[in-house]
Amino acid sequence: MSSWESYVRKVVPYVPGEQPQEQHMIKLNTNENPYPPAPGVIRALKEFDTDRLRLYPEPTCKVLVDAIAEYYGLKSSQVFVGVGSDDVLAMIFMTFFNSKTPVWFPDITYSFYDVWADMLRIPYEVKPLDENFQIVKEDYYGENGGVVFPNPNAPTGILMPLSEIEDIIQHNRNVIVVVDEAYIDFGGESALPLIEKYDNLLVVQTFSKSRSMAGMRIGYAMGNEKLIKYINDVKYSFNSYTMNQTALALGVEAIKDKAYFEETRQRVIATREWTKQELTKLGFSFGDSMSNFIFATHERVSAKELFEALKKEHIFVRYFSKERISNYLRISIGTKEEMEELIRFLKNYLQ
Amino acid sequence: MSSWESYVRKVVPYVPGEQPQEQHMIKLNTNENPYPPAPGVIRALKEFDTDRLRLYPEPTCKVLVDAIAEYYGLKSSQVFVGVGSDDVLAMIFMTFFNSKTPVWFPDITYSFYDVWADMLRIPYEVKPLDENFQIVKEDYYGENGGVVFPNPNAPTGILMPLSEIEDIIQHNRNVIVVVDEAYIDFGGESALPLIEKYDNLLVVQTFSKSRSMAGMRIGYAMGNEKLIKYINDVKYSFNSYTMNQTALALGVEAIKDKAYFEETRQRVIATREWTKQELTKLGFSFGDSMSNFIFATHERVSAKELFEALKKEHIFVRYFSKERISNYLRISIGTKEEMEELIRFLKNYLQ
Repeated sequence: MSSWESYVRKVVPYVPGEQPQEQHMIKLNTNENPYPPAPGVIRALKEFDTDRLRLYPEPTCKVLVDAIAEYYGLKSSQVFVGVGSDDVLAMIFMTFFNSKTPVWFPDITYSFYDVWADMLRIPYEVKPLDENFQIVKEDYYGENGGVVFPNPNAPTGILMPLSEIEDIIQHNRNVIVVVDEAYIDFGGESALPLIEKYDNLLVVQTFSKSRSMAGMRIGYAMGNEKLIKYINDVKYSFNSYTMNQTALALGVEAIKDKAYFEETRQRVIATREWTKQELTKLGFSFGDSMSNFIFATHERVSAKELFEALKKEHIFVRYFSKERISNYLRISIGTKEEMEELIRFLKNYLQ
Repeated sequence: MSSWESYVRKVVPYVPGEQPQEQHMIKLNTNENPYPPAPGVIRALKEFDTDRLRLYPEPTCKVLVDAIAEYYGLKSSQVFVGVGSDDVLAMIFMTFFNSKTPVWFPDITYSFYDVWADMLRIPYEVKPLDENFQIVKEDYYGENGGVVFPNPNAPTGILMPLSEIEDIIQHNRNVIVVVDEAYIDFGGESALPLIEKYDNLLVVQTFSKSRSMAGMRIGYAMGNEKLIKYINDVKYSFNSYTMNQTALALGVEAIKDKAYFEETRQRVIATREWTKQELTKLGFSFGDSMSNFIFATHERVSAKELFEALKKEHIFVRYFSKERISNYLRISIGTKEEMEELIRFLKNYLQ
């Protein structure tokens, strides 16, 4: 072993979810939106002045920050944008989770929280969900180094009422509370209005799901000006120019089009509710998802077996070989036609 | 002060260089390429299938990594790509500079090295350039936690011969040596061939300068497979999907077009040599830049005064109010016409 190896930051290599590149497949494994981005995005790309690519992007991401702020009725100084909500969350962990006291998050949750904590040497403690996969708010009372959880939670899809979220924030006024709302647009109530009331709250959202822009990597955090400034200070010390010019230009168009957003998210919600009914008929059970996926287990056939059988049919869903959830499948909501095909296959397979 | 504030990662906020958005200006302040990206880049953008934007990018960035590897005759496992060379260098600092012994770099150099070190709590020591702004290789003998320097150096533009770089690597076999070659394509000899010989060498380059793609944020590191794997492990623990779909698609086209690359870099080099002659006639002196900028001082008029006078004329150059270099201007090489206009103004101003 070369002696420089002793100074390498050793991490448990995170394995990103499978991104099959098949031409004909039904891709229900990474919670992407089945509909293309808003028409304005497509227009902006076609009209993009490529000569400008030789120039650095504007480092404060002003056009995009302003567009997001306007959409939510915030000041621009209350918005931070990054390269997907992963970048935003990593910057938040780095900026605010520097206490020696453990950060708290659920045992079953977004799989990156413990990865960031491990990599950044942040102590953490997981709080088990109850037997119905619900977050127990009382578990988050007490001394900690920060709190982070998704709402709706992933991969369960289960939504917490806003009153319980406020209760968690009220019990944690000395640390930063991060509500990760990647899936909030599919039926949940956002904690965003609470940022005016609580200076320790950050709400994180993304363009990857409800805005159909996973391919452009755009996430954002909203909170009081002071918190946003602290994140920006760290971001500028890491990489001043994170958002490339196309992300900025296309992002503006994606957030502007309220009508298209409303139409596509309602379609996803309607398809989800239809899929829930069909899955129930087939002997699946699941928490009442308010996201763009359903986290389901079958009364008879193992999740692992179904995962493999579906894969053979070029239908990709997500399977986690992890304690407590190893008999569940996370099924993203595709188009109605895709979900009909899924149900048709399952009906046939399970009969 | 709220009590969460005591756990904030306090950094000296880095102030990114000015990005004036004026319509009619001569922008010679951030070392961008005056020529647009290769024709294939423009075509790829126009033909981009926007429906795909709803999908996550391929996380290993295979198409782009393969294209870079092919260009240099490397294996794909010897190449790492990131969101500009800033992202690549930040990941390298994070991955390899975890010793308690200080990392070494020059006193006058790329202004981000100390920012990353401060932010990541990495001890460092600067090694003063000599009176001619040259790196003294013997300064880099001895126990340290890693070595990083640009070649050509920034903002001096001065190139180090490959033999001296190899000497530094040979004297630092126990740590990682990073040669930051952002400007190497403008007349320098790359240390790339040495990666086969030294397992502790990383060579970092970028699409921002010689590839005319500052707006797309693409940087890369080349080294032996083991080093690249370590960086990837950390990167996947930070953000799995850093490069958006347009960066991947356009990046491939930018690296493929050797003829266009050759043509534009030769034009920049020719304009630089012409500008050197003209600046000398006007009473400027400077090290022999092998980059796409000239770092010059005037015999009579202060850099600060010239900077302000140029700015009034909408000619933007870079001024650093920093010890040892506060009487220098860093002037990026624009088109021949832009440089003629600069010289015309200076001639008039200095007479």
